[in-house]
Amino acid sequence: MIELRSQAFGVSRVSSSEPVALIQIQRDASLSETEFLKKAFPAISEAATRMLFVSQTSMGQTLSVAFPSDGLDRARRIVADALSKEVQDGQLSILCTGPEFTVLSVLGAEMRHRPGVAGKVFQTLGRNGVNIVAIAQDSSERDISFVIRISDREKAVQALEEAFQLSDRTHIHLFLCGVGQVGSKLIEQIASHQESRRGENIVFKLCGICNSKNMQFSKDGIDFETAKDILKRNADPSSPRAFVERMKSMNLPNSIFVDCTANEEVPKLYETILNWSISVVTPNKRGNAASFEQYKKISDAARRANVKFFYETNVGAGLPIIGTLGDLLASGDEILKIEAVLSGTISFIFNSFTTGVAFSEVVREAKAKGYTEPDPRDDLSGKDFARKLLILAREIGLPMNEHEVEVESLIPQDCAEAKSVEEFFERLKGHDESFEKLAESAEKQGKVIRYIGSISGSQAKVSLQQVDASHPFSSLSGSDNIISFTTKRYLDRPLVVKGPGAGVEVTAAGVLADLIRAASYMH
Amino acid sequence: MIELRSQAFGVSRVSSSEPVALIQIQRDASLSETEFLKKAFPAISEAATRMLFVSQTSMGQTLSVAFPSDGLDRARRIVADALSKEVQDGQLSILCTGPEFTVLSVLGAEMRHRPGVAGKVFQTLGRNGVNIVAIAQDSSERDISFVIRISDREKAVQALEEAFQLSDRTHIHLFLCGVGQVGSKLIEQIASHQESRRGENIVFKLCGICNSKNMQFSKDGIDFETAKDILKRNADPSSPRAFVERMKSMNLPNSIFVDCTANEEVPKLYETILNWSISVVTPNKRGNAASFEQYKKISDAARRANVKFFYETNVGAGLPIIGTLGDLLASGDEILKIEAVLSGTISFIFNSFTTGVAFSEVVREAKAKGYTEPDPRDDLSGKDFARKLLILAREIGLPMNEHEVEVESLIPQDCAEAKSVEEFFERLKGHDESFEKLAESAEKQGKVIRYIGSISGSQAKVSLQQVDASHPFSSLSGSDNIISFTTKRYLDRPLVVKGPGAGVEVTAAGVLADLIRAASYMH
Repeated sequence: MIELRSQAFGVSRVSSSEPVALIQIQRDASLSETEFLKKAFPAISEAATRMLFVSQTSMGQTLSVAFPSDGLDRARRIVADALSKEVQDGQLSILCTGPEFTVLSVLGAEMRHRPGVAGKVFQTLGRNGVNIVAIAQDSSERDISFVIRISDREKAVQALEEAFQLSDRTHIHLFLCGVGQVGSKLIEQIASHQESRRGENIVFKLCGICNSKNMQFSKDGIDFETAKDILKRNADPSSPRAFVERMKSMNLPNSIFVDCTANEEVPKLYETILNWSISVVTPNKRGNAASFEQYKKISDAARRANVKFFYETNVGAGLPIIGTLGDLLASGDEILKIEAVLSGTISFIFNSFTTGVAFSEVVREAKAKGYTEPDPRDDLSGKDFARKLLILAREIGLPMNEHEVEVESLIPQDCAEAKSVEEFFERLKGHDESFEKLAESAEKQGKVIRYIGSISGSQAKVSLQQVDASHPFSSLSGSDNIISFTTKRYLDRPLVVKGPGAGVEVTAAGVLADLIRAASYMH
Repeated sequence: MIELRSQAFGVSRVSSSEPVALIQIQRDASLSETEFLKKAFPAISEAATRMLFVSQTSMGQTLSVAFPSDGLDRARRIVADALSKEVQDGQLSILCTGPEFTVLSVLGAEMRHRPGVAGKVFQTLGRNGVNIVAIAQDSSERDISFVIRISDREKAVQALEEAFQLSDRTHIHLFLCGVGQVGSKLIEQIASHQESRRGENIVFKLCGICNSKNMQFSKDGIDFETAKDILKRNADPSSPRAFVERMKSMNLPNSIFVDCTANEEVPKLYETILNWSISVVTPNKRGNAASFEQYKKISDAARRANVKFFYETNVGAGLPIIGTLGDLLASGDEILKIEAVLSGTISFIFNSFTTGVAFSEVVREAKAKGYTEPDPRDDLSGKDFARKLLILAREIGLPMNEHEVEVESLIPQDCAEAKSVEEFFERLKGHDESFEKLAESAEKQGKVIRYIGSISGSQAKVSLQQVDASHPFSSLSGSDNIISFTTKRYLDRPLVVKGPGAGVEVTAAGVLADLIRAASYMH
């Protein structure tokens, strides 16, 4: 049955041994290789009731043998007796460790002459942070055996069975921190995605979930439907650190930590999480927009551990902005200028604002449609927009910090000081006239007003600009985001990406996209 | 010196042994494991003057030992003598193979406790098509040794040294077929890219080049400056098959075959090339636009061999169209509709054509600017556009063939029959009036005419359409390409990518981008 299902690389089975201990016999330079073999081999074979594993590399310094743990004492005694003289003379040393190991074997009659099997085996283990203590593959090429810590056994077997398609499904273990609007929508979307792709190989399991108060875990997966209710019923007090420590201790393969908070503290844990060989996916800008030092540490950790850190939704929700920029850079292009409208709220406001329409009314309409934050000043300050620009600047390689992004705030001084949102709107009315004048002056020159972020050289700024009809941003509509890349390659005419770039629905969809992308690397 | 340079995974050295032969002692089920060890080990240690490698896996069926080839005869004799009774009884069999093997060792004091080292070793070898005959890593974790065919030695050592950054540079070996406009420009661009990135780790070497008549090879790299001249001077007659056979026999790591022909025959070799673990990069549409069967075979071969097949420039030159589509699909989105203008020529013609301008004059201007093929009918037939649409349809998963794409030709019947380009233009004048009427009728409704390719459901077609001002294609200008994806995720408002999508310069730049992308997977 299993043999039939197996397609990938001819692997038909992954087996694991009982607990084993290792005996290593190591030679000193004073003993020749030949002498070493003549002494060590008979001693080992004398000791062996069963030997699970033998490995000696070409340097010929150490012979490693794995014994069932219960035979260890006897084996050690026999080896020590047989080699006592050499040990005394300092020619040999004997080291026993155990019984915390196991021998895993990847088996298959069809593995022979298939380049890449060993690559897949050890890459899968490496990606999951499993350390390999010793390896043996004999020249029958039908068996690759290796010794790992017994605490990694379950994780390693599961990861390998999934990598070689010996189990029907690859399980991706999610740990979700934050179940606000985006987090809740994400749970819904994962459930419905899974429902509509029942035949597919990748299955997401929600193995941990927390909000600011409580947390809950299940190795077998928390039901998506009731995930939020479970947090209400459960009294396990939560903290980000407690949550990730528990995630680590579960030691599951193919794990992804999903940060759907807008919290500044959670991103401080990313580096540690990535070091544990757990991938991170997040719409939370706070990590990448924090200090440059933190930004750098996080991306370095992901690269080092060979796991994924995906945050496409930091800029323009699900639009392929960070991905496209990364591709341009990875493929050797040089970014000369970026221009962008990266706020759906502000896009809507200026796409609707024209002469004869009160600016304050347009902002009111944006709020009524749910496009703005509860306090529209959080959008109009330009700070959120500036953070997105900062992230793009860093992706290009500029070692910038937030205060270095120049921002022209859209909030007049007296409105900034207003104590309530209503008072803000009242005061904003007083500025309708000056906004009207701005619009008129633009109209006279055949231009429109846009609030544009730009990066050029090592300068990043967000400012009000007048653009003419030929500018790609003049025809922007709705709450679409737009970004234009002028590069060495796209010099005369820029590369433009446009589409909806805000909202709970598209943000959650973007996070799901990142999850599926991360999962595809694990599959 | 080498030790200092080494950063990646703590590997400090890759060494290879003299030629070795393998002795395998295999036990029959009638012999217990313990008996096996008690017999085989002393026999082996008796035979060993030097033993380069020992490996026995957990199934305990086979003990593999590598001996220097020159000691093989002696070793075989001793083992055979010592085990003659068991061999006669059928309990053991002895197999000697050689001397065509070598033992490679990846060494480093700092490798210990670093998950991922073995993964990187064997993944690098797998990607380069190197078969692993046997493996041993002892529990010192400072040495991973393995047996490979000696003909793969140079390739394996080079690939590993580069993967672990033991050499300053990663060399990517290019084999370029076709040095017409795009091929020549590509050579220039690679040379200048390399010149401007002297400090970088990836170095492209042009190890083979051919046109329809001649071919030339050099393991050390052909000078980019004189590459084309060399073909004139060299008399080695060329054929695509001879060229790729020679490429294979060179057996270099990190090889990429670059097809810059517009030939139909070369793509028929892609499957074979990919099966040899050599990546393929091409702007040539003929492979992906050939029969669906061939398209499928090529992409399956790339996946199976775990090498890259990149052809971003098949559609929209360097614009991230195939990449974006692939990302949407890979991340679980569903494509509902694609609309696109994928011909720079046709884009220019309809962006310039308006009431009061003769259609035939616009086509003349396009030709004068060098936007069209020598015979503009090759653009106006819509066939090339249809091929691009076909490729997109296949990327979505539609098993389509070329005749299933509906194409509305822009060439009136009598123009199609014209014997010369000049005659074609003369006859086209006769249709200016009907094109004028078309433009007028569109203008009356506030619309413009665009020649649009669309995929919806399982239907693909290219046709003249009237679109209103709110349509994203109405504001198209110059010779830009544009594509809009309406998906499950981008339902109300599409995701749009726009920019220059034709021309020798951007096409070659797109091929270079694909090369750098492919190289980054090898690095």
